[in-house]
Amino acid sequence: MKYANRMDRIKASEIRELLKLTQRPEIISFAGGLPAPELFPLEAVEKAMVKTMQTQGAQALQYGPTEGYDPLRKHIAGLMGAMGIGTEFNNILVTNGSQQGLDFAGRIFFNEGDYVIVESPSYMGAINAFKAYECNFLEVDTDADGMLMDQLEATIRKYGDKVKMIYVIPDFQNPSGRTWSLERRQQLLALAKQYDLPILEDNPYGLLRFEGEPMPAIRSMDDDGRVIFLGTFSKTLTPGLRLGWVEADQELLQKFILCKQGADLQASTVNQITVANLLDEFSIYDHIEKIKYVYRNRRDVMMEAMEMYFPEGVTYTRPTGGLFTWVELPEHINTKELGAKAIEHKVAFVPGASFFPNSENNHCMRINYSSMNEEKIKEGIKRLGALIQAEM
Amino acid sequence: MKYANRMDRIKASEIRELLKLTQRPEIISFAGGLPAPELFPLEAVEKAMVKTMQTQGAQALQYGPTEGYDPLRKHIAGLMGAMGIGTEFNNILVTNGSQQGLDFAGRIFFNEGDYVIVESPSYMGAINAFKAYECNFLEVDTDADGMLMDQLEATIRKYGDKVKMIYVIPDFQNPSGRTWSLERRQQLLALAKQYDLPILEDNPYGLLRFEGEPMPAIRSMDDDGRVIFLGTFSKTLTPGLRLGWVEADQELLQKFILCKQGADLQASTVNQITVANLLDEFSIYDHIEKIKYVYRNRRDVMMEAMEMYFPEGVTYTRPTGGLFTWVELPEHINTKELGAKAIEHKVAFVPGASFFPNSENNHCMRINYSSMNEEKIKEGIKRLGALIQAEM
Repeated sequence: MKYANRMDRIKASEIRELLKLTQRPEIISFAGGLPAPELFPLEAVEKAMVKTMQTQGAQALQYGPTEGYDPLRKHIAGLMGAMGIGTEFNNILVTNGSQQGLDFAGRIFFNEGDYVIVESPSYMGAINAFKAYECNFLEVDTDADGMLMDQLEATIRKYGDKVKMIYVIPDFQNPSGRTWSLERRQQLLALAKQYDLPILEDNPYGLLRFEGEPMPAIRSMDDDGRVIFLGTFSKTLTPGLRLGWVEADQELLQKFILCKQGADLQASTVNQITVANLLDEFSIYDHIEKIKYVYRNRRDVMMEAMEMYFPEGVTYTRPTGGLFTWVELPEHINTKELGAKAIEHKVAFVPGASFFPNSENNHCMRINYSSMNEEKIKEGIKRLGALIQAEM
Repeated sequence: MKYANRMDRIKASEIRELLKLTQRPEIISFAGGLPAPELFPLEAVEKAMVKTMQTQGAQALQYGPTEGYDPLRKHIAGLMGAMGIGTEFNNILVTNGSQQGLDFAGRIFFNEGDYVIVESPSYMGAINAFKAYECNFLEVDTDADGMLMDQLEATIRKYGDKVKMIYVIPDFQNPSGRTWSLERRQQLLALAKQYDLPILEDNPYGLLRFEGEPMPAIRSMDDDGRVIFLGTFSKTLTPGLRLGWVEADQELLQKFILCKQGADLQASTVNQITVANLLDEFSIYDHIEKIKYVYRNRRDVMMEAMEMYFPEGVTYTRPTGGLFTWVELPEHINTKELGAKAIEHKVAFVPGASFFPNSENNHCMRINYSSMNEEKIKEGIKRLGALIQAEM
């Protein structure tokens, strides 16, 4: 049997395969991007489900519109407003998590051999989604403020019309934990306008800021409809409902709606109505404050533990929000090999190589601090520190 | 801004656009493929949701494995067994309805310009899903027993290696309502083996047989892993949970799992656990008997009404299961134009043209009998009959 060429490019995600190993309860896992399950608002969700079934049961179990359930789209538009992005509900398409928005963006923009520009490193789930559309990747180096703009412009000029999209995660980036400065955001938008390119702004963590002032979303500065914004309830409410969204101007949004129609018709009606009913009564903003309180403490504990247990020569980012820190080891240490040893010592992380579509980078790792409690964070970092020390 | 070439092929589904019009309560709609909402087991679903939240809440709201929730996969394997297909839970991937399986099949098999063989007419949702992968369509004519095998073989020989898959809906086909004979099923499988082609067997309605003996699924006769089976809970339980599945041998299933990972990571954890918990206590087989009883009556009422109100020269299929009948009018009557007039008279159907990817066919219509009550069926068919009469 013969498969399409694209199937040669699609490989099993190492994170997903690793996560299977790390699901054993005895493992201290910094590998996933899991929100802390003890913070899920179980009672409120249950109550909203019961209300949905008792007052709108038949509607909730029936097919619904591809765009999404209007009261949920209105809540999402309100949430976008709270993020500084003025929009309307009809600019929202409800998706199965923001991962589906990544898939659709690939579908809309890439012919085989086209180029997408990504941060180096970038989110491996996006890299995997885009590969299905047989695009190639152009990595642009980043510093603490975001992509290096000279390099970005040189890259666009070099590859010209074959560049079809710029993909960025400007807030608490996955995997680096870094946040773009205002200036870089403005520069990115200016370059995108100059070269007439769309920007895909992926923002799952933007509301999880522990300290400092929020940066304006790139989409909030977009005056000609070239920015597509991806949001999700996975990190602020729960991932198990699989609800995210695409927000864009009408011409672009209509393309995403067509993709949704062909891909799976619509997001779950009952989950959409449940979340809309939930948000009628439950303050997601208060809930986000609780999440931030816990994650901030975990970040602090992790930073202290890294300071204490990681040997000199190891650097790591200090995120001001989100779920991840990015650790750089001396270049001679291969984190894939280290990862295998770590599993033996019942601690897990994601080796950095997966976050670079082209370049060789084998000495970094992504560490998650949202899903383990403070005691496990200390113990896990202690074990990792000892393993790193042994490699120095 | 430049879009990928495939976007030129993806158009808004006429059914979905039409459905928006037909959602007005005063319209008697035979247009959708909606199951009867009054048959949804609301209390049982609510009870299963509450159980899920109270006993497995944190797990239900967390990320889960891409393949699906194992207890649900086991229930699905049992359901496949009841359809005469021996399989194991690890041959099942849980998807967002079977529509997502169609999307993934396109992704796995088609390069630009490849050919897929479909029944003429075929399901427009599949046609739309496949178009995203820039394939071309080869229609093979059908009679009351399924595809015409001579024409199928001639088509395969003519297009050779560019043919990548055969897509069929052998039970109560959408849109025709027809069911393939055993002999045609065997012949199709033999041809697929001879020319080494995969078969995509889409079976949303197979369990909804009103009369006669069930035909064996093509997958049940597959001895070398070339048949991919698509199933769904949308027609036997509820579409609003968006749960369907792909069942295939391991090599093929792994390709679908990779697609799922990139496309949206996984189906909703909470919906999967809820359905697994529901099926622990609730007999879906008893429930299907209730659905069949109602749909059989509605089919009978519709057949009687068509007999009474449709003028001579109009033919229609008499389905032994499923949701649809296919009506053929004299060739000079254009059903798109008739459809517009029908909406004015507050009755709706889907014009047949959408079900033919290549050929011109403007004098047919798909009529659904599952979602309107008997009184509305009589009234709607009476109105349609008068409109047709006026065109004769």
